Amino acid sequence: MITLDPRLLNDCEVLGKFTLCHVLLMRDANYPWCVLVPDREGLTEIFDLSAEDQNQLQLESNTLLEFLKNEFNADKMNVAALGNVVSQLHIHHIVRDKTDIAWPKPVWGTFPAKSYTDESLNKLTSQLTEGFKILNLGFQPK
Amino acid sequence: MITLDPRLLNDCEVLGKFTLCHVLLMRDANYPWCVLVPDREGLTEIFDLSAEDQNQLQLESNTLLEFLKNEFNADKMNVAALGNVVSQLHIHHIVRDKTDIAWPKPVWGTFPAKSYTDESLNKLTSQLTEGFKILNLGFQPK
Repeated sequence: MITLDPRLLNDCEVLGKFTLCHVLLMRDANYPWCVLVPDREGLTEIFDLSAEDQNQLQLESNTLLEFLKNEFNADKMNVAALGNVVSQLHIHHIVRDKTDIAWPKPVWGTFPAKSYTDESLNKLTSQLTEGFKILNLGFQPK
Repeated sequence: MITLDPRLLNDCEVLGKFTLCHVLLMRDANYPWCVLVPDREGLTEIFDLSAEDQNQLQLESNTLLEFLKNEFNADKMNVAALGNVVSQLHIHHIVRDKTDIAWPKPVWGTFPAKSYTDESLNKLTSQLTEGFKILNLGFQPK
């Protein structure tokens, strides 16, 4: 297992792991926002992954996007690999709604993160981990 | 062939087409910035593509990312499918440098696009189209 970047751990809850990627939930109640981190050491770009891992990432990413879109009735999914600040390869998967605070802008640099209450975070974490179990992606909760 | 969204055509130069995707260059001299638009009608999400097309997009996207990183000696590549404003499925591929105007922020919503001179646009277009021809992605210039 890789060591997750401390800045990701500071901003996110670790929900568990799919076959390739750790699955994190961004602690920002403005948007349901998951982050996939491939369990591979020292990579910064998607094309640094082996061909096999690229295929697995694509499967996990696209399955997660479709799950999140349906689960939260999203108007649009945003997916991005940026990594300008945290270089450890990680891919954002963000549920966007026409009523969300930043719409239609991208979420970065618009509004500060909004805290979850303990209750809402627990509820969302349960909803996601229960959903992930039936995605056929080898999900193991933390 | 699909009809490209007029807002993409307004912001970008069309360079040509790979096997699946149209390749556009964003008219923003702040960053070398290409946009891939799968030649499929009416799709808004990557997971709307068939499995075969998803594989082809992955190939074209990752090959383009690696090419741009090497060609411009990028510090980081940014790749994103947002589509909150232009819903036609399109994927951004942006060369980031630690000296660029927005670093380390994402490029959206930070600085207005900087115009290319005709000369610099022609030079960059030639550089990209010549490079694309040897990528084994079936590139056909416009």
